[in-house]
Amino acid sequence: MYKDLDLIEKRLAEILSDREKNPGLIDPIRYSVLSGGKRIRPLLSIASGKLNAADSKSVLDIGCALELIHCYSLVHDDLPAMDDDDLRRGIATCHKKYDEATAILVGDALQALAFEILSAPGLKISPDNKLKIINIVSEASGINGMVGGQMLDLYSTGQQLNLTDLQNMHMCKTGALIKAAILCGYLCGSEFSLVRYSKLGQIAGSLGLLFQIVDDILDVTQTSDTLGKTANKDVVNEKATYVSLLGLEEAGAIAGELYTEIMVDLSSIQNSDMLQDIATSVYKRNH
Amino acid sequence: MYKDLDLIEKRLAEILSDREKNPGLIDPIRYSVLSGGKRIRPLLSIASGKLNAADSKSVLDIGCALELIHCYSLVHDDLPAMDDDDLRRGIATCHKKYDEATAILVGDALQALAFEILSAPGLKISPDNKLKIINIVSEASGINGMVGGQMLDLYSTGQQLNLTDLQNMHMCKTGALIKAAILCGYLCGSEFSLVRYSKLGQIAGSLGLLFQIVDDILDVTQTSDTLGKTANKDVVNEKATYVSLLGLEEAGAIAGELYTEIMVDLSSIQNSDMLQDIATSVYKRNH
Repeated sequence: MYKDLDLIEKRLAEILSDREKNPGLIDPIRYSVLSGGKRIRPLLSIASGKLNAADSKSVLDIGCALELIHCYSLVHDDLPAMDDDDLRRGIATCHKKYDEATAILVGDALQALAFEILSAPGLKISPDNKLKIINIVSEASGINGMVGGQMLDLYSTGQQLNLTDLQNMHMCKTGALIKAAILCGYLCGSEFSLVRYSKLGQIAGSLGLLFQIVDDILDVTQTSDTLGKTANKDVVNEKATYVSLLGLEEAGAIAGELYTEIMVDLSSIQNSDMLQDIATSVYKRNH
Repeated sequence: MYKDLDLIEKRLAEILSDREKNPGLIDPIRYSVLSGGKRIRPLLSIASGKLNAADSKSVLDIGCALELIHCYSLVHDDLPAMDDDDLRRGIATCHKKYDEATAILVGDALQALAFEILSAPGLKISPDNKLKIINIVSEASGINGMVGGQMLDLYSTGQQLNLTDLQNMHMCKTGALIKAAILCGYLCGSEFSLVRYSKLGQIAGSLGLLFQIVDDILDVTQTSDTLGKTANKDVVNEKATYVSLLGLEEAGAIAGELYTEIMVDLSSIQNSDMLQDIATSVYKRNH
């Protein structure tokens, strides 16, 4: 996995170095993308590509495109009008380091760049599968996916959400892109089994949920230093979380059950070692 | 052209009515998209599709996707951190009617939706051409296109741009998407002539330039009421424009020359009547 992380960092840097016509914009873009991050989405694509003998360069690009979408969403979510955050990955957020207008445009440009990468000629993926991938990513990013989830999140602050609403919000906000990463990785290969594809979608749903529950737990149990972003923010903002709704113990128990379920499901799938490793690191992470 | 405008409005409304899961977001999206507008980009795609016997439903969708990108850019450009505008198409801008967070998310969701439409199954365009269209649109929207142009525009306010810089900025900011509209319309058909394609690209460049010069002229000669947006804004903001650099008379003369050149070029292309009509309406518009 460390080798893959290295490849992801290199490829992201490469993608962003090709586009240096506009230094006023590319510098803050590089600042926002190349400042670390767990790179869960590209890792998931690569891991899922291994189930389907995907071409490694092509699946790397698909994963990087998903990471660009994720990075844009962070830049916009941190804006004063949204979550108003000063700290991200241990450094100043884009609008703090530059300014608000730049941060808005960085996000906009990153979203466009993601689709440029996804539609680029030269990837060894069939045209039909490329189109499927673009359709999945755009749907997962938009009204009924990530952006819709952020909207639900913003307008639920201070409100008493129930568990179903909370789950629906997270399924959109983070779950949709995590699911897209896994499904698109699989579509980078040429085999297609509907049973396998559906199963992967289901595992991806559980993994997205696990990711969010662990996030909520870490928000109350870790310091800002460890997290690289403001800790205890959900409590301060009166946001409903799995911890606020279920308590720390129950949230931890559900995370454990989800993790077990995911590992059992993956154990019956050939070449899923890397997906299992990622699931474990999602469950056991401390930042 | 009026029939086509009607089809565009209907299709945009249809596209946005299919996505009603998230009323908090879909209402401001509909407000921002379905509030009129000249619909130049979809009209250009439809007109260009006629040169290549494109399937009318498919080219309509491609044009509408481009209009969604254009609408998102207006919503973001109007934000307080950017152009800080209260009025658009004669009504309150999205962030004035709703709030800033909503306007940011409306733009983000519209961009994703555009790529969802472009990659949707069912369009009668070859998979390879669909991918080319997506690649053209993403490039025209991003760092080296629309967003890059907006960045250049923002950071040139109050500076003394020369004509080359001004032209470069507009080629990115508005020219890229206008060119994309024409090229993508052509790619909706199945014939491909590199000579025709290149010629169309060149005509599109001139048309984009004409559009901008006329815009600059209208900014100083028309009232806010006629324009549906704040008039004389460029002067107040000390923005370099074709009028500020060349004077009203010289700007008008160049517009006239460009129009003549475009019409001569188009007159040698079969089935270009609609493109000619659009060029005329761009040249002779008063809002």
